[in-house]
Amino acid sequence: MTKPLNVGVIGCGFMGRTHSNALLRVNNFFDLEYQPVLKAICALEEESKLKAFASQWGYESYETDWHRLIERDDIDQIEICTPNNTHKEIVIAAAKAGKNIICEKPLALSAAEAEEMCVAVEEAGVPNLVSFNYRRVPAISLAKQLVDEGRVGKPFHYRATYLQDWTISTDVPQGGNTLWRLDAKVAGSGVTGDLLAHSIDTAEWLNGPIRSVVAKTETFVKQRMHAETGKVEPVRIDDACMFLAVFENGSMGTFESSRYARGRKNYNTFELNGEAGSLFFDLEDPQYLDYFQYSNPSTGDKVEDHLTGWKRIHVTNFEHQYMDRYWVPGCTIGYEHTFINGLADFLKGLETGVPAQPDFRSGLRTQKVCDAILESARIGQWVEIA
Amino acid sequence: MTKPLNVGVIGCGFMGRTHSNALLRVNNFFDLEYQPVLKAICALEEESKLKAFASQWGYESYETDWHRLIERDDIDQIEICTPNNTHKEIVIAAAKAGKNIICEKPLALSAAEAEEMCVAVEEAGVPNLVSFNYRRVPAISLAKQLVDEGRVGKPFHYRATYLQDWTISTDVPQGGNTLWRLDAKVAGSGVTGDLLAHSIDTAEWLNGPIRSVVAKTETFVKQRMHAETGKVEPVRIDDACMFLAVFENGSMGTFESSRYARGRKNYNTFELNGEAGSLFFDLEDPQYLDYFQYSNPSTGDKVEDHLTGWKRIHVTNFEHQYMDRYWVPGCTIGYEHTFINGLADFLKGLETGVPAQPDFRSGLRTQKVCDAILESARIGQWVEIA
Amino acid sequence: MTKPLNVGVIGCGFMGRTHSNALLRVNNFFDLEYQPVLKAICALEEESKLKAFASQWGYESYETDWHRLIERDDIDQIEICTPNNTHKEIVIAAAKAGKNIICEKPLALSAAEAEEMCVAVEEAGVPNLVSFNYRRVPAISLAKQLVDEGRVGKPFHYRATYLQDWTISTDVPQGGNTLWRLDAKVAGSGVTGDLLAHSIDTAEWLNGPIRSVVAKTETFVKQRMHAETGKVEPVRIDDACMFLAVFENGSMGTFESSRYARGRKNYNTFELNGEAGSLFFDLEDPQYLDYFQYSNPSTGDKVEDHLTGWKRIHVTNFEHQYMDRYWVPGCTIGYEHTFINGLADFLKGLETGVPAQPDFRSGLRTQKVCDAILESARIGQWVEIA
Amino acid sequence: MTKPLNVGVIGCGFMGRTHSNALLRVNNFFDLEYQPVLKAICALEEESKLKAFASQWGYESYETDWHRLIERDDIDQIEICTPNNTHKEIVIAAAKAGKNIICEKPLALSAAEAEEMCVAVEEAGVPNLVSFNYRRVPAISLAKQLVDEGRVGKPFHYRATYLQDWTISTDVPQGGNTLWRLDAKVAGSGVTGDLLAHSIDTAEWLNGPIRSVVAKTETFVKQRMHAETGKVEPVRIDDACMFLAVFENGSMGTFESSRYARGRKNYNTFELNGEAGSLFFDLEDPQYLDYFQYSNPSTGDKVEDHLTGWKRIHVTNFEHQYMDRYWVPGCTIGYEHTFINGLADFLKGLETGVPAQPDFRSGLRTQKVCDAILESARIGQWVEIA
Repeated sequence: MTKPLNVGVIGCGFMGRTHSNALLRVNNFFDLEYQPVLKAICALEEESKLKAFASQWGYESYETDWHRLIERDDIDQIEICTPNNTHKEIVIAAAKAGKNIICEKPLALSAAEAEEMCVAVEEAGVPNLVSFNYRRVPAISLAKQLVDEGRVGKPFHYRATYLQDWTISTDVPQGGNTLWRLDAKVAGSGVTGDLLAHSIDTAEWLNGPIRSVVAKTETFVKQRMHAETGKVEPVRIDDACMFLAVFENGSMGTFESSRYARGRKNYNTFELNGEAGSLFFDLEDPQYLDYFQYSNPSTGDKVEDHLTGWKRIHVTNFEHQYMDRYWVPGCTIGYEHTFINGLADFLKGLETGVPAQPDFRSGLRTQKVCDAILESARIGQWVEIA
Repeated sequence: MTKPLNVGVIGCGFMGRTHSNALLRVNNFFDLEYQPVLKAICALEEESKLKAFASQWGYESYETDWHRLIERDDIDQIEICTPNNTHKEIVIAAAKAGKNIICEKPLALSAAEAEEMCVAVEEAGVPNLVSFNYRRVPAISLAKQLVDEGRVGKPFHYRATYLQDWTISTDVPQGGNTLWRLDAKVAGSGVTGDLLAHSIDTAEWLNGPIRSVVAKTETFVKQRMHAETGKVEPVRIDDACMFLAVFENGSMGTFESSRYARGRKNYNTFELNGEAGSLFFDLEDPQYLDYFQYSNPSTGDKVEDHLTGWKRIHVTNFEHQYMDRYWVPGCTIGYEHTFINGLADFLKGLETGVPAQPDFRSGLRTQKVCDAILESARIGQWVEIA
Repeated sequence: MTKPLNVGVIGCGFMGRTHSNALLRVNNFFDLEYQPVLKAICALEEESKLKAFASQWGYESYETDWHRLIERDDIDQIEICTPNNTHKEIVIAAAKAGKNIICEKPLALSAAEAEEMCVAVEEAGVPNLVSFNYRRVPAISLAKQLVDEGRVGKPFHYRATYLQDWTISTDVPQGGNTLWRLDAKVAGSGVTGDLLAHSIDTAEWLNGPIRSVVAKTETFVKQRMHAETGKVEPVRIDDACMFLAVFENGSMGTFESSRYARGRKNYNTFELNGEAGSLFFDLEDPQYLDYFQYSNPSTGDKVEDHLTGWKRIHVTNFEHQYMDRYWVPGCTIGYEHTFINGLADFLKGLETGVPAQPDFRSGLRTQKVCDAILESARIGQWVEIA
Repeated sequence: MTKPLNVGVIGCGFMGRTHSNALLRVNNFFDLEYQPVLKAICALEEESKLKAFASQWGYESYETDWHRLIERDDIDQIEICTPNNTHKEIVIAAAKAGKNIICEKPLALSAAEAEEMCVAVEEAGVPNLVSFNYRRVPAISLAKQLVDEGRVGKPFHYRATYLQDWTISTDVPQGGNTLWRLDAKVAGSGVTGDLLAHSIDTAEWLNGPIRSVVAKTETFVKQRMHAETGKVEPVRIDDACMFLAVFENGSMGTFESSRYARGRKNYNTFELNGEAGSLFFDLEDPQYLDYFQYSNPSTGDKVEDHLTGWKRIHVTNFEHQYMDRYWVPGCTIGYEHTFINGLADFLKGLETGVPAQPDFRSGLRTQKVCDAILESARIGQWVEIA
């Protein structure tokens, strides 16, 4: 017998859709004590659009003011899918109201904000999750498993890119509902908070904390029309950001993100090189994890010389995490399933009392690295992570 | 304002799940006049399992006898997800009852059966679709578009494989709910009806009718335990089948399917070589269509010599069919979305009166090729398609 | 101390160049008792071209009549790089003269011719080799090694293609020095003798003898200008050939070759699927052998489920055959090195008395399969290999 | 009629072999006025080894003292294949003696040394070349051509890696004939001079000068046995080096090199992203250049949306630079051919009076970037290129 869990989602853009979809589908695939009920959608949109969204995704009601949503007694859980500059205020209010909270990434505009948010949820004792959905790509889960099994061994190098190409045209405006990610007031930063936050979350999950960074950012298009004002305004986000890192375990890291890498659409890659083996992943080919095995961690035996090579592990079979919940071996899942998997883990955490990760404390950690990157880019110096 | 469309699904195995999922989700993504209502699930399963399935997927009711389901006045549409040997009888009854029918592939055990089924739906005038879901892989839709745009030009070669490896072990039993595909009485044939039917449907869609074939089948494991009787019985299906084909347009075809191709999980590939260009697809990398452009069909201009090469088109952007219904450019979809896309096309066909394809008449065509293949394998001669 | 081995090469086209290159270079890389001396080049070319060729490759002399070359006492070894229709006569004369013979493939126009040639070299007791150079691609040597180590296990499937696209244009003439491969009188057959002969040699080397075949050939361009007569003449070669095969070990084979596969330049591929593992090779990526390991042949242990995948073995390291003779690990070699490797093996065979393979008897075997293919295509029936 | 060009090679290690091979073969493939004669090999090796080398590669004589070689009147050209710390002295002496000079990379231990060497060759007016052989990989030549044709357009990003894994084991000694690259006294630096020098030469050739860098180096194995002394000594080279760069054209660069990237053997890659298109190359797959075309530079037309993708250009056809000198379309060449191509260009430069590139002045430029990298790594600050 499942227990209903009443959910209110704030934001009906791209992320509002992915969260709605996950809420609707999680019980089709996972055996869980809780069953989300799509109680209310909330956004600042015109009422007709909000109604249409509610109808399309089957919400029972809608709200145009998030304060009102949080006040409602019939809501157990808040999911925050709004622009970055709204996260803090909503989180603090929702925590005070005792709601479970799932917040889109990046958690906040700065580590200082994120720290306040951590305090709020911890004092309130409410379950909380930052939606770094890529931890739930089966191939990335497998990477974590292989690291934990000792298959990488002593690490030497970590390199990550997150490359896109959708803002090259100077005709793309900034701001508004769809392009707030280009508006520094709303987004806080450009690719650093949007894309590198993912890369950093994955990197620290797989390879431990980053100790220090040196970074360089660039804004290639210096001004763009603002979608709301219609005026040409300076662009204040980072269009691209690259940084070097030293991890606490002594390994070296290179990171790069851009929305100006022609031909790269969602090229979120990482490679980890260690004494015992290496791993490579590319989000454009999400069904694969590439693994170079040099030696067996349990026996120490080396792979026979003439058999060494990069192995492409196609993670569509049931032996990989999450896959047995879906179809049959050999059948791919897609982008949206990372949200379903993450929600399932969060709900399972509610059942077991072992909180799903990354929680806000973990999201704060990523925020600190982002802050250090932007500070390093500003001052042109190496910066230690606080 | 959407109109409810009451659906009854027969079969609660793998295909029952993919159809249920499509019915639940199609209106989240597509703007359609009709909105399916999951009225009833029907299967021969024990009642407790059937109840659990109904609960998991949100069916309003369940039935244990398909005759009863078809008799119900509150059902507009029947989706047939049962083993192949049941299709004919259900289709004929459903047609008589005036239901819309979506039937899993292969349509029937033989062309003779399929012919009867065609007559039934055509006489009854009911909308009908055979669920060759791979036509709705965006990359395969793109292949069809490129062919229609003249980008392949005069065709010379078509080659297809559909390779899996899940029945190599002699410990796999035959028969029962999950392994009826190994039981010739229930499945009719082995890889020919299960896998090559897909390859043939795609091939004829892209390259026109096959004129004649010469085939060879093999049963590598000669006997297996039957899951229902517990007795070791002869295996009568084809474990593997390969055939040569001549198309009516004069091009040459090679086809091969097996469940004994170690390391190939869902390796459904095709390549089409023509004077103006070539196409390649592999279902294990479903986000890509590979295209070799030799010349431009509208101008006749050749690609500059030093720029010729195979282009990997990543079909996750909005310019590709179906993709704009989902997330944002760069985000992959998965196996299940082929069913959602197909259902959307079927429902759109109900709206517009232009029936979605492949209908039963088209499914009959595939059946005739399958019959010719099996006949050729039996007699060791070239066989013309009837 | 090396012994000089005086060589005469007949033919100064593409193959004359590859053989000359191998002769010049083999002692730079291999430690051998014999050191070839480029004694004479022989061809029917105009004397000025022949002189230029001799000068470019450092031949001591040239001959315009091969009978004269064979009569020379200062020649130990004859290498035959002339069109197929000349092989038999030259071989028989060279054998009678007691020369070592390396003959380009295909050995002859027919199995009957090849049989005569075998008898000639065997009666004369002269060392002989058919130049199926691809056996000496390091990745193909590795494939053979893995098969011999039991890593494929019981074989189920073999599939091979050899695809090119250089004769699609109707403007390509037939005949003459460069395009004799399109002239049936000179070449005997089209892709069957030229390309499939390679595929068959590799297939039988790796997977044992073929028992029976059913084939279909096609000539897409029915007539072409003859380069010598300037007249449009019917094309009598096979532009494309596909066939099904059954191997004596019970596995199934598909083979296809064409010069009309737009975008495929030298796409000589094979895949072997067995119970314990699978192998894949593509000559366009000659530095790789792809290997799917399912189980370890010595222990019978299965690879851990979550680690299964296709491994891309980059064969540029010293542990692979031939590679330690060249540069350092990681450095690729090219097409021409297959000829150097083959010549080294032949010379080593002279030293040790263990003849290098494939000898003429083995070349005859390939010829028999080719004959069966062409016969099957002619009569439209399965044909057993004699 | 060719003119003999008498060459003396200094160094008989790996590079001595690649140069000898190029000298022997260049006239087999290129039509040149000059024909190198392998006059003398010179090295400090034991006489027996030197004799064997001379015999294997066909040198007329050998010398054990390079001063003696340079004094010889019968030598026109010196090729320097010795460790880095010897380059300067040999170059200056050879320049004074009026010899043509080809020097292995990196040109010197420092920019200061390289500057002296430039002055020497320029004052003497002798032809000079630094052997950055990768400019002559056909795919890299093609990259240069596409850049020059405007196909990349305004550049945004350049990223390069040069990864190997051969020094991970602590058992690898430093120093001696084969491992002098690990001995800082002899090599000057580790991966910076050995591998990044290649990456920098290619980067500046394709994307113009680097303006400033910030770098981090690491020595993972702190001490190794010295091969000559047998004693464990500190390792003073950089095992790995990563740096960020800003190019003078405003684009951003990331570079990384290591000998600790498990599974990467000769992973010399670069990617250039520009407004009109992108390029990617990987030396482990040297037969390909990957090209993403967004727009046509001559017409400004965009590629049709549904056809955009990365194109894998297989550069084995005659339309690509150098390829028409070798075999037939579709046939790969290997690592060694980059040296043959480079020597051909140098000899052609002697004919035409237009010096081949990169000359010493260009090599000095790379040295300055290397110096800036090492300085940046030492002081932990951004450094401008002098």
